[in-house]
Amino acid sequence: MSTPIVHLSRKYTFSASHRLYTDHLSFEENEAIFGKCANPNGHGHNYQLEVTVRGNEGGVSLPAMERVVMTEVVDRFDHKHLNEDCEEFSALNPTVENITRIVWEKLEGKFGTSRLVRVRVWETPKTYAEYTGPVSYLF
Amino acid sequence: MSTPIVHLSRKYTFSASHRLYTDHLSFEENEAIFGKCANPNGHGHNYQLEVTVRGNEGGVSLPAMERVVMTEVVDRFDHKHLNEDCEEFSALNPTVENITRIVWEKLEGKFGTSRLVRVRVWETPKTYAEYTGPVSYLF
Amino acid sequence: MSTPIVHLSRKYTFSASHRLYTDHLSFEENEAIFGKCANPNGHGHNYQLEVTVRGNEGGVSLPAMERVVMTEVVDRFDHKHLNEDCEEFSALNPTVENITRIVWEKLEGKFGTSRLVRVRVWETPKTYAEYTGPVSYLF
Amino acid sequence: MSTPIVHLSRKYTFSASHRLYTDHLSFEENEAIFGKCANPNGHGHNYQLEVTVRGNEGGVSLPAMERVVMTEVVDRFDHKHLNEDCEEFSALNPTVENITRIVWEKLEGKFGTSRLVRVRVWETPKTYAEYTGPVSYLF
Amino acid sequence: MSTPIVHLSRKYTFSASHRLYTDHLSFEENEAIFGKCANPNGHGHNYQLEVTVRGNEGGVSLPAMERVVMTEVVDRFDHKHLNEDCEEFSALNPTVENITRIVWEKLEGKFGTSRLVRVRVWETPKTYAEYTGPVSYLF
Amino acid sequence: MSTPIVHLSRKYTFSASHRLYTDHLSFEENEAIFGKCANPNGHGHNYQLEVTVRGNEGGVSLPAMERVVMTEVVDRFDHKHLNEDCEEFSALNPTVENITRIVWEKLEGKFGTSRLVRVRVWETPKTYAEYTGPVSYLF
Repeated sequence: MSTPIVHLSRKYTFSASHRLYTDHLSFEENEAIFGKCANPNGHGHNYQLEVTVRGNEGGVSLPAMERVVMTEVVDRFDHKHLNEDCEEFSALNPTVENITRIVWEKLEGKFGTSRLVRVRVWETPKTYAEYTGPVSYLF
Repeated sequence: MSTPIVHLSRKYTFSASHRLYTDHLSFEENEAIFGKCANPNGHGHNYQLEVTVRGNEGGVSLPAMERVVMTEVVDRFDHKHLNEDCEEFSALNPTVENITRIVWEKLEGKFGTSRLVRVRVWETPKTYAEYTGPVSYLF
Repeated sequence: MSTPIVHLSRKYTFSASHRLYTDHLSFEENEAIFGKCANPNGHGHNYQLEVTVRGNEGGVSLPAMERVVMTEVVDRFDHKHLNEDCEEFSALNPTVENITRIVWEKLEGKFGTSRLVRVRVWETPKTYAEYTGPVSYLF
Repeated sequence: MSTPIVHLSRKYTFSASHRLYTDHLSFEENEAIFGKCANPNGHGHNYQLEVTVRGNEGGVSLPAMERVVMTEVVDRFDHKHLNEDCEEFSALNPTVENITRIVWEKLEGKFGTSRLVRVRVWETPKTYAEYTGPVSYLF
Repeated sequence: MSTPIVHLSRKYTFSASHRLYTDHLSFEENEAIFGKCANPNGHGHNYQLEVTVRGNEGGVSLPAMERVVMTEVVDRFDHKHLNEDCEEFSALNPTVENITRIVWEKLEGKFGTSRLVRVRVWETPKTYAEYTGPVSYLF
Repeated sequence: MSTPIVHLSRKYTFSASHRLYTDHLSFEENEAIFGKCANPNGHGHNYQLEVTVRGNEGGVSLPAMERVVMTEVVDRFDHKHLNEDCEEFSALNPTVENITRIVWEKLEGKFGTSRLVRVRVWETPKTYAEYTGPVSYLF
C-alpha cells in the first residue's frame, strides 16, 4: 500500500486595514455593493490565516513551514494598509477572497516535497474564504 | 485558464430548544437512543450555522448573502422551540443532522449565480453536522 | 507572611431551555421587556458556568470540586426546561442573573475549607452574569 | 438583607483601523515606542468590547443595553479609521487603553438605574485593556 | 433519490506529554528537525480530537459514538506520556501526524453501519493534522 | 482629578508537561488526591498565561512587556517538563495554583513604573488559577 497521506495545517495572524471599492464604479455603486467597507479611510481586521500542506515522509517540518509563511505572507501584510502599502493590492480589491488567492500564489511551490493544498483566510471570526488551487473539492 | 474558484463561508447563530424522540418508539426506546435529549419538556442550544457558497466574479456579496440566511433560516428558528414552533420539524426529529439538511433545502438556489456548497450546524461547540448536497466529498 | 491566596476557577456546561416572562405582566408587556425570549414554547441555550473558589493549602481538590458542581448544578439543569422541570424556577424568572444567584446558593458552603467567591453564567458566548455574594468588588 | 447585586456583561465587536504615534515625537521615536503600529497608513483590528453593568431589579434590560452601546459606540467606530474618522481620537492616540476610557465616557450614566462598572476592549484575542472608572479593584 | 448523506463530527480532548526524536539521528540532528520538541524530558499538550462519521439512517448514535472514542482513544492517551506509557508510540515518533493516523486505525470499523471518514488532531489551537484514510480529498 | 487607571492584559502560551504528587504521601494517597495527574511519567498541557499590569502614562509599552514575560517565564517553561527541567518545581508540586504564584514572583517589579496586578494561568481551556499578590479582591 502507498504511504498514507496526512494533511498538516497551521494558523497565523496578521492585523491590517483595507478599503473595498473598485475604480470602475461610482462612490454610490461601491457603497451599494460593499456597504460600510467602502469608507474612504478604510477600516481594519485581525486576519487569521490557515495554511494546509499535504504531508509526506521527509516533507516540510513545522518550523520550516513557519519560516516560509512568516517571510512570504505575515511579514508583508502585518500592520499594513493593504491598499496603500502592499503592491499586490494596488490594482486588486483586497476582499477576503482576493487575499486568499494572493496568499496561495505566494506560498505555492515553497514547501519542498510537501504540496500546498489549501489556504483559508478569516476576515473576522465569522467570515472566511477558502481556496484549494485549480481543483476545488466542493461542487 | 478558467477563473479560480474561491469559497466564501459565514457563521450565524440562533438559540432554540428541541426534543429528540420518534413516535414509532416507546419512551424507554427513545431514551435508550437519545438519552437525556428525550426529556419531554425539551432542552436548548445556542446553534451555530456556517453557510458556504462557491464564489464567482459578480456572485453574491456578503451583505446579500446575510439577508438571505437571516430571512430563510435565522429569523425562523431563533428563540423558537423547533418541535413546537417550526412546521419543518412537526413530523421530523430535530436532530442536528436533520436541521442541517433542512437548512440546505431552505438556502439552495437562493444565492443568484453563487452556488450553495456546504452547510454546517453546530449543536454545541463540540458537535456538528455537515451536508454538501447530493455529492459528498468524504468517502 | 500569611499564606498567599490563589483563586481556582473551572468551567462547566449545560444545555437547557427557558422562557422569560412574569405572570404580573400582560403578554405584550412581557414581550416589550424580554423580546423574543417571551416566546410561549421557550427556546434554549448552551449555558456555560464558571465556579471560582478561594484556594488554600489543604483546600478542595479539582476532582472534589467537580463532583460537587456536577451533583448540585449540572445534573439538575442539563437537558432540562428550566421553567418546567426545575422547581427553583417555578416561581422565579430564569434570567441569566437569576440562574447565577441560584447556582451560588446551591454551591455556597459545599467546598469544605475552600470558600466559594464567584459564580459566572454565560447564556451565550456574548452575554454573562456574575455574582460574588453579598460583597461586590465592582462599584 | 439587601438585594443581591448581580453584574451583567455583554460583548460587542467593531472593525476599525488606527495608527499609533504622537506628534511630540520624531518618526524614529514613535517607532521605538509603538513598533509596527506607527506605520503611516495605519493597520486594523477586529475590536471586541465588553460592557458590564451593576444590575438591579428593574434595571436596564439586555435589549435596552444593546441599543445604547450600538448607538453610542459601535455605530461610531465600526468600519472607521479611528484617527481620521472619529473626532474623539483627532488629538488622542487611539491606543487600546485610550479607546477603553473613551468608551467608558460615552456610556457612563446612560443605563438608567443600572450603573456602568467595567469596560474592557480587546485589540486582538491576546491583548485587552480594562477600566472601572475612578475606583480600581486591582492594586 | 438515494438517502442524503450527512456527516457528523464530535470533539474530544486529552492531555498528554510527548517527545519528538528518532533513534536514527544524533541529538543535534533531532534538534535541527524538531527544535524544542526534542527536549529529553518531553513536554505536553492539551490535544483536541475531532472524529467524523458518515451518517446514515439507523447509523451510530452520538452516545454510542462517544463510548467508542472514549474507550479506544481518550482513556488510553489522556494524562499519559505518549512515548513512555503508550505502546503505539514505543517505536513511532508521536508527531501530530502519526497520532492522527493511529487514532484512525483504532476507530476504523468500530461505528457499526456508520463509516469513519475523517480524523483531525489539534496539538495546539494553531496546529492540526487531518487524515481521511486511503482516499484524500485534497490534492 | 488623578490620572485614570487603565489595566492592560496580554496572553501568552507555553506547552509543558508535569506530574502532580508529593513525596510526603504514598502513591495511593497521591492518586486519591490528584487522580490521573499522579501518573509517574507525567502528562502535558498547553498552558495559557495572562499578565495584567496597572497602566500609567509613561508606563510599560506592550513590546517591552512582551520581552519581560518571554524572558522571565515563557522561554523557561515552554517545551519543558516542569518537575524535571525547572528548578522552581524541583521541590514544589507544579499545580496550576503554584505555577501561578511562581509566575507572579518572576514578574513582580519587572515592569518599570507599571505595577503587576494579576496573573492568571489556564491549565486547560476549562481550568485556571488567579493570583493578585498579597491583596485579594475576591472575598
